[in-house]
Amino acid sequence: MKTKASMDRRSFLKASSTFACGLAGAVAFLPPVVAGAEAAPAEQGPNILGPREPYSPHVGTLVSMLNWMRGGILEPVQGLTVAQLDYLHDAKANTIGSLLLHLAAIERLYQIHTFEGKKWNDWDDMTKKQWDVAANLGKDARKGIKGNNLAYYLDKLKEVREHTLAELRKRDDAWLMQVDPDGFGGKPTNNYCKWFHVCEHESNHNGQIKWIKGRLPA
Amino acid sequence: MKTKASMDRRSFLKASSTFACGLAGAVAFLPPVVAGAEAAPAEQGPNILGPREPYSPHVGTLVSMLNWMRGGILEPVQGLTVAQLDYLHDAKANTIGSLLLHLAAIERLYQIHTFEGKKWNDWDDMTKKQWDVAANLGKDARKGIKGNNLAYYLDKLKEVREHTLAELRKRDDAWLMQVDPDGFGGKPTNNYCKWFHVCEHESNHNGQIKWIKGRLPA
Repeated sequence: MKTKASMDRRSFLKASSTFACGLAGAVAFLPPVVAGAEAAPAEQGPNILGPREPYSPHVGTLVSMLNWMRGGILEPVQGLTVAQLDYLHDAKANTIGSLLLHLAAIERLYQIHTFEGKKWNDWDDMTKKQWDVAANLGKDARKGIKGNNLAYYLDKLKEVREHTLAELRKRDDAWLMQVDPDGFGGKPTNNYCKWFHVCEHESNHNGQIKWIKGRLPA
Repeated sequence: MKTKASMDRRSFLKASSTFACGLAGAVAFLPPVVAGAEAAPAEQGPNILGPREPYSPHVGTLVSMLNWMRGGILEPVQGLTVAQLDYLHDAKANTIGSLLLHLAAIERLYQIHTFEGKKWNDWDDMTKKQWDVAANLGKDARKGIKGNNLAYYLDKLKEVREHTLAELRKRDDAWLMQVDPDGFGGKPTNNYCKWFHVCEHESNHNGQIKWIKGRLPA
């Protein structure tokens, strides 16, 4: 089981290959819409948000947020048993387990949407089979997502996140700023906003996870 | 009462004075630790995250996140009555009203901490009197925060946020990257991480607000 301390350590090791600040000279050669950006913090570490090697500056800043937020999610669920992960507080509630799988599902769907260019909800059958229940939560999730230990959920989260980071490494700040004219609520929405949503969405459900955790049966 | 639509409209108007991409040439003259950064999205609007005039590039990106997240908070509470804002789901719960005031309180304390350089918890008596109950939630908040209408909470949030934005306008990306060696959990933490936390903290409690809202008595 991954502890918060070990995650911090991993993030720290990963981040400590400090991003050298040699981009200034290159900026003028980038297209005018996206002049490259670098504002490297003097130190690196899990609580230092900002550009991260080897990502583009804004992409790396997003990655630093995704990493930091993930630490916040992993902390409250440490040590939870299968019974605790399956605990249903009331008839409308979701279990902590299903909320964790929901986070992986939503991240996976945003990968398909933004990396593979699929319209939201235009998922293939395999994707629907694998992720629909967790993505939609509610009745089917209450029935279908149970009996898994913590490692099951953490592995799913980790596997999906690794793919996110691998795909973000291939993309630059111009991609991050690209606008989908039919984004959230039919309003123009850029990839940065979509991925920021994936990030804050973890916090949203973390608030609920902590709420449920505070009410687990003794 | 402010609607989501009117907020989006305001944010859109505010953001639509597009940040001209003329910074590339200036980058080389900035200190090496913080080379200025600009990756302006082609469009502006509430769902377009990225640099925002008149802020420094990374500061403006943070502001775009704060604005976007605030829209997410304002939406579920629209139209709630005093009784709904005061609804206590169980003996350990916080009311939606107290959670809204908690968000304003935490943002105010981060202002004092990061803009005025005060150590966390080293607040003056006036600050303690005004914000301690909302910042700490729990028993005292259950007893003391009630009877206020929605406008009361939204005004507090707005007033505090306006001060945040005014102070952020005075600061640059170098400030945002500045590291407090004794930050979260005694680990080095930069101002970007502290203000990102203020932002995702809204999402965390928004998850709880929506949870409570789904269980309000008919």
